[in-house]
Amino acid sequence: MTRKLYVLNGPNLDMLGHREPEIYGTTTLKDIESECIRVAAEVGFELMFAQSNAEHEIIGWLHDAYRDGAAVVINPAGLSFQSVPVLDALRILNIPIVEIHISNIHARDEAHRHSLMSSVATTVIAGAGAYGYELAVRAADAIAA
Amino acid sequence: MTRKLYVLNGPNLDMLGHREPEIYGTTTLKDIESECIRVAAEVGFELMFAQSNAEHEIIGWLHDAYRDGAAVVINPAGLSFQSVPVLDALRILNIPIVEIHISNIHARDEAHRHSLMSSVATTVIAGAGAYGYELAVRAADAIAA
Amino acid sequence: MTRKLYVLNGPNLDMLGHREPEIYGTTTLKDIESECIRVAAEVGFELMFAQSNAEHEIIGWLHDAYRDGAAVVINPAGLSFQSVPVLDALRILNIPIVEIHISNIHARDEAHRHSLMSSVATTVIAGAGAYGYELAVRAADAIAA
Amino acid sequence: MTRKLYVLNGPNLDMLGHREPEIYGTTTLKDIESECIRVAAEVGFELMFAQSNAEHEIIGWLHDAYRDGAAVVINPAGLSFQSVPVLDALRILNIPIVEIHISNIHARDEAHRHSLMSSVATTVIAGAGAYGYELAVRAADAIAA
Amino acid sequence: MTRKLYVLNGPNLDMLGHREPEIYGTTTLKDIESECIRVAAEVGFELMFAQSNAEHEIIGWLHDAYRDGAAVVINPAGLSFQSVPVLDALRILNIPIVEIHISNIHARDEAHRHSLMSSVATTVIAGAGAYGYELAVRAADAIAA
Amino acid sequence: MTRKLYVLNGPNLDMLGHREPEIYGTTTLKDIESECIRVAAEVGFELMFAQSNAEHEIIGWLHDAYRDGAAVVINPAGLSFQSVPVLDALRILNIPIVEIHISNIHARDEAHRHSLMSSVATTVIAGAGAYGYELAVRAADAIAA
Amino acid sequence: MTRKLYVLNGPNLDMLGHREPEIYGTTTLKDIESECIRVAAEVGFELMFAQSNAEHEIIGWLHDAYRDGAAVVINPAGLSFQSVPVLDALRILNIPIVEIHISNIHARDEAHRHSLMSSVATTVIAGAGAYGYELAVRAADAIAA
Amino acid sequence: MTRKLYVLNGPNLDMLGHREPEIYGTTTLKDIESECIRVAAEVGFELMFAQSNAEHEIIGWLHDAYRDGAAVVINPAGLSFQSVPVLDALRILNIPIVEIHISNIHARDEAHRHSLMSSVATTVIAGAGAYGYELAVRAADAIAA
Amino acid sequence: MTRKLYVLNGPNLDMLGHREPEIYGTTTLKDIESECIRVAAEVGFELMFAQSNAEHEIIGWLHDAYRDGAAVVINPAGLSFQSVPVLDALRILNIPIVEIHISNIHARDEAHRHSLMSSVATTVIAGAGAYGYELAVRAADAIAA
Amino acid sequence: MTRKLYVLNGPNLDMLGHREPEIYGTTTLKDIESECIRVAAEVGFELMFAQSNAEHEIIGWLHDAYRDGAAVVINPAGLSFQSVPVLDALRILNIPIVEIHISNIHARDEAHRHSLMSSVATTVIAGAGAYGYELAVRAADAIAA
Amino acid sequence: MTRKLYVLNGPNLDMLGHREPEIYGTTTLKDIESECIRVAAEVGFELMFAQSNAEHEIIGWLHDAYRDGAAVVINPAGLSFQSVPVLDALRILNIPIVEIHISNIHARDEAHRHSLMSSVATTVIAGAGAYGYELAVRAADAIAA
Amino acid sequence: MTRKLYVLNGPNLDMLGHREPEIYGTTTLKDIESECIRVAAEVGFELMFAQSNAEHEIIGWLHDAYRDGAAVVINPAGLSFQSVPVLDALRILNIPIVEIHISNIHARDEAHRHSLMSSVATTVIAGAGAYGYELAVRAADAIAA
Repeated sequence: MTRKLYVLNGPNLDMLGHREPEIYGTTTLKDIESECIRVAAEVGFELMFAQSNAEHEIIGWLHDAYRDGAAVVINPAGLSFQSVPVLDALRILNIPIVEIHISNIHARDEAHRHSLMSSVATTVIAGAGAYGYELAVRAADAIAA
Repeated sequence: MTRKLYVLNGPNLDMLGHREPEIYGTTTLKDIESECIRVAAEVGFELMFAQSNAEHEIIGWLHDAYRDGAAVVINPAGLSFQSVPVLDALRILNIPIVEIHISNIHARDEAHRHSLMSSVATTVIAGAGAYGYELAVRAADAIAA
Repeated sequence: MTRKLYVLNGPNLDMLGHREPEIYGTTTLKDIESECIRVAAEVGFELMFAQSNAEHEIIGWLHDAYRDGAAVVINPAGLSFQSVPVLDALRILNIPIVEIHISNIHARDEAHRHSLMSSVATTVIAGAGAYGYELAVRAADAIAA
Repeated sequence: MTRKLYVLNGPNLDMLGHREPEIYGTTTLKDIESECIRVAAEVGFELMFAQSNAEHEIIGWLHDAYRDGAAVVINPAGLSFQSVPVLDALRILNIPIVEIHISNIHARDEAHRHSLMSSVATTVIAGAGAYGYELAVRAADAIAA
Repeated sequence: MTRKLYVLNGPNLDMLGHREPEIYGTTTLKDIESECIRVAAEVGFELMFAQSNAEHEIIGWLHDAYRDGAAVVINPAGLSFQSVPVLDALRILNIPIVEIHISNIHARDEAHRHSLMSSVATTVIAGAGAYGYELAVRAADAIAA
Repeated sequence: MTRKLYVLNGPNLDMLGHREPEIYGTTTLKDIESECIRVAAEVGFELMFAQSNAEHEIIGWLHDAYRDGAAVVINPAGLSFQSVPVLDALRILNIPIVEIHISNIHARDEAHRHSLMSSVATTVIAGAGAYGYELAVRAADAIAA
Repeated sequence: MTRKLYVLNGPNLDMLGHREPEIYGTTTLKDIESECIRVAAEVGFELMFAQSNAEHEIIGWLHDAYRDGAAVVINPAGLSFQSVPVLDALRILNIPIVEIHISNIHARDEAHRHSLMSSVATTVIAGAGAYGYELAVRAADAIAA
Repeated sequence: MTRKLYVLNGPNLDMLGHREPEIYGTTTLKDIESECIRVAAEVGFELMFAQSNAEHEIIGWLHDAYRDGAAVVINPAGLSFQSVPVLDALRILNIPIVEIHISNIHARDEAHRHSLMSSVATTVIAGAGAYGYELAVRAADAIAA
Repeated sequence: MTRKLYVLNGPNLDMLGHREPEIYGTTTLKDIESECIRVAAEVGFELMFAQSNAEHEIIGWLHDAYRDGAAVVINPAGLSFQSVPVLDALRILNIPIVEIHISNIHARDEAHRHSLMSSVATTVIAGAGAYGYELAVRAADAIAA
Repeated sequence: MTRKLYVLNGPNLDMLGHREPEIYGTTTLKDIESECIRVAAEVGFELMFAQSNAEHEIIGWLHDAYRDGAAVVINPAGLSFQSVPVLDALRILNIPIVEIHISNIHARDEAHRHSLMSSVATTVIAGAGAYGYELAVRAADAIAA
Repeated sequence: MTRKLYVLNGPNLDMLGHREPEIYGTTTLKDIESECIRVAAEVGFELMFAQSNAEHEIIGWLHDAYRDGAAVVINPAGLSFQSVPVLDALRILNIPIVEIHISNIHARDEAHRHSLMSSVATTVIAGAGAYGYELAVRAADAIAA
Repeated sequence: MTRKLYVLNGPNLDMLGHREPEIYGTTTLKDIESECIRVAAEVGFELMFAQSNAEHEIIGWLHDAYRDGAAVVINPAGLSFQSVPVLDALRILNIPIVEIHISNIHARDEAHRHSLMSSVATTVIAGAGAYGYELAVRAADAIAA
């Protein structure tokens, strides 16, 4: 039976490649999805890849993952620092959670260097750029194995 | 010419596999070194792998890396939260720095969930267990490329 | 003329009975709705019972309550601690507001033990389990009388 | 065998009905006791109702409840915010504890909106006025059942 | 070529004129829109005027403004104090941003007197009532010129 | 009868146009005074325009405004963050107070982003450059009307 | 009709004259009582002078003052900094309250330089030694007049 | 030889009787000076009474007091909370210092309830209204004796 | 002449052996008294051993100790963290004070890990269980010698 | 089989008897070692007594104690407040840990009154002077028994 | 052309030699001026030496230094900790600023150990007594060279 | 007899001239040693100049200075902010201590702008570059004289 992997992306990530390229590079979310499809196939995951600017959509997908997911990779973006609803939705899960940030958020200011989500994540990867998604999928595979 | 990778480990990591196995697992540092040798060879790094309980030895190795290193992977362990001397030594470097923690330190208490070193690291990986070293070496390779 | 009572439920409460049952029990939101219908009928309230993961839907229902509600019972769930928009929507109301939490949030950690909403609520009930909804409806009846 | 319910009231509550009526109403503690007797009888509790301005008397009654109580309803009043001795006495108990406040303390200033006692209470009810005592007795019945 | 001005309004502003009139006056959002149309026409802006209770709609309009806007006037209302997603969406823009608050938020309590958005706004106007919108449009014109 | 408008400027503003032009531009205080004269005349204010490096002179002018002023526009500059004497002098007034800052102080560091004076100001305008003075005079007119 | 003045003294003041004389002098509480009797007679107060180490006795006397007192002079001593029950008992009163401290508590460390009681006192006198009691009785007379 | 008493008054006190009469009453500083002259004469002080809005004038008078003063009574008003220069000038003195506030500053908000000056004052009197000046002069007499 | 040793125990310690035995063990206060009698006799102390839930009784005994005690051993229990009256009573003493806690309070949470009393104690012993009383008596003997 | 006791001493304790004798007395570390030898022999411990200024040596000895120690007595001195590496090394141990401080550190300033190590120590003894070492060895014996 | 050096002294420094001599010594400001004249001549500076108790005079001199100064040596005294106007005046300068304090302010309490001015000073010298002025002039010479 | 001066340098200063030259310049520690030798000879000090990355070596040298030093100049570098062991070693000394920092640490962020060591230093010099060492040696000479 195929294992299903959710790769979820939070607000403004649809602008990736356009927005502040000196921080986030020129890779688009489309490029990242392609890369995730490749690596997921390699390690044997069925992929569900999505992005939303709406907190409730992210929550809905996490509820889906509760039902049929083998692991979750999530880049909560701007929801990282305040969203207790997303935190609660992650807390429901009993599958591996890999949190990913494209830039190294730990090097940012006091208020934005610690993601709320990290307290329930299994693994956290930050600052590896778009390549971090590949690392995240591999980590999900290793832990969910 | 071979690129040299420093994989440095801080205080008490020599006890790995003995100490609090319910948190850190039973893998020893020797096992991790073997794994790093394998992956380093695969991606074309010459490996310098070391551990010390002494802050000044870590600093010395970082000065060495300043001279001939292509990248540094560091698990600062107990030095993560307070050691400004190690932070200063990392700040001298102009090569990629991948900080790794075996457990997810971000899920720990307020005082110990944010490593000082993360403010100068390129990439931070936490909570992927011993497997995180493999991810770290691969990330170092990707960035140092 | 019938008095209309809004019983509103925030994010993730649709998972009740599935999620962390050792904290929230096995009662589902459906069960709670039935119970609320029974008690509301007993004390003479017309019931509007709803749940949403979307902040803006909760706000919309509160605007409705502004127009035709006699009282509001609200379990803000994960929106309790940060949502100023919901707080503002509650502040508009000039009818009784009973805030309810299934578990005793006051016994939780510093950051999550005080609901923002409590500053504008009339009554706050926490830690009485699903039975708290019955108490809340009775309290709403007593105050709105 | 009859279950015994302790309803304990802290400092200054003997002044209820006299003191700051715009906040606490004109109901006296005597009125509240009568109401508690009625509801306790209805749900099958033997009632022990008491008030004291002395911390050590409250502690003594809690020690009594440890020996023969089925549940405790407590309005700690001014002892809510600082009294570790009362907190310790509550912590000894392994029966349901319902904490009640006549006004909504959660809407007060930072220093006085969170009762120390709430960290060990089972249920907390605030802001339902004198009617809150009835809710508290019913909640004690529901949990102690 | 006409310059396009976005005037965006956050949660609960649809209740303007109904809600807490002693603080916000009796002017409705419709009245404000008419005034904005008049002034925008006078200074030569094409106007896009909108309100939403949903964070993701605001974000969507800001992405639109990224594509074709000459300036943004935004009253983030309850999103001012916590919404990092809106902050991130504003940060993407490289056009003038005028933040407006109808009341003087700087005179409010510690937690709500400083808008997160102000750190990326060009100009901030607060406490000029509905007239502030006229000032904001004029300021946008002056800066965007 | 003519209404009298006080436009008061705090310490170092006499250096405007010389000092840190990349932040404050090249407009001098003389230029701003001319502009204020023009707009004040347009809306029907008699203008009293002054600058001082001495706190007690600002206080003296505010006492004058108490006696014959219709409104005050004040740029407290470096006195914004600490001067309780100026705050007290503003508090005496029962006429509109428009606080103006040339740059957006709300985007500055924690210690200097919130002016003490804002708690008693009617309107606050920041970050509109020298043009903000025109907006301020118009706002004063609108409110004092 | 004679006006009744309560002069109440908190814990450890029975040791006055023995305890830390370099701070509190050698005057005993007996000496102070005599002085209060003299001044009270002079200004026309009937005096009730008492000391207790027990919080609940102080509260009881304040309840008495609620019934027949014209003014209260209180030296809360060690109860000054934490006792919400005494604070609540003072809050009930609608007669002048003069708080007195023999030494200048405002010059002490952060934690002990601000009495809780001062927030409800009419007048506060500190650091005038035993002579402060005379000033306090006179102040009570002036205000209660 | 006559003892010289300095009674010094800080910023805005020249407005006394005009400013916020519901807090400070209608007594003017002139009235207070007359009262001080009367009491000073009674207890044998030569009086130097002055007010200034300028910090440096207060400092100058304190330097005078250093040379020929027997005691200082000071109402630092708005300088109370921040002025280290006035604090330093008080610290030079080795004569009694009586700090007086007309209203009870200890009942104000966190930031303004503790005067910096109190740490070097001998005696502090607050909340006795204009009558407090009489108490202050008497206290100065008692201590300076 | 015999030296008199006071061994004083605060609130809830009468429940020792009943209360939370997994933290405090099954030894009762009676057992501890017997042990103290034995050791006190051995080192030549006359023993006064007492427990109270009332703060004022503890204070009274400390006043007794001021008159005829050679040393005090005190387990302030729940009074450790807030009771300034007990702190003041300890401060009066000029004999050795040994503070004892049965469990290691220093390992508890931020708010309850530091006893107020420790700032005036001579010696502090925590976490040695009931055996700590023997150590405390011996320490009192060594210091009081 | 003999039980082995480690008595470890941190930085600067080699200066004991020389350094600040008014705080630490004239006893040298040599004297303390002799005393420990005597008491250890009496209770049946083989003694390992050592001092170092180097953190890594302390860590090494703690690793030794992990292998063959029955208990550890440690005076971490200046390492008490910051050294996470020593804390981690103590956390590995599953034998009794008695932390000792010659002076009463709990009476020192906020920053230096709470040792990090106390959170993992079994017993803490402070302020009993050099005699505390004897108490510590006896406590180690009692717990390790 | 001669370089002009401003040596500016803040409030109360005119009392030097009189005030708290155990901290500041008996050297007067006159003595310091003589010494500065000597050293300035030696290194080739034209000296402008001044003291004022008035913030606005210091600001005026700093504006002068902006026009013709080569370097500034400033002892801000009591203005060090709060004066944003002086800070702003220093920030205008683009010449070396040497901040000097006679005593070691860094050893003082939390609130007064860090001068605001240090954030814009080039060099800071504290605790070298009056001799520090000589060091400051030499440092100004070295940097301004 | 010659006076001996210790000039001690902390972690990473061996990299001086290589590391972050835009902050610390290109002068090496060797250059600084030469300069110190020259100035020490001029003022009559025998020089002991050393650098170490190891905290315990710095402590050892400070113990040496305790025995035969006339003064200490110390640049604690990264040990400045956390090392209580070095602080304790400095506290033992009863000779002048001149603390030096090459850059102006007081202008850095909150966490790194105040050296722990400054609380026991006699003199602190920061931001004078390598030339600061010359000033430090001269200051040591002046004070140690």
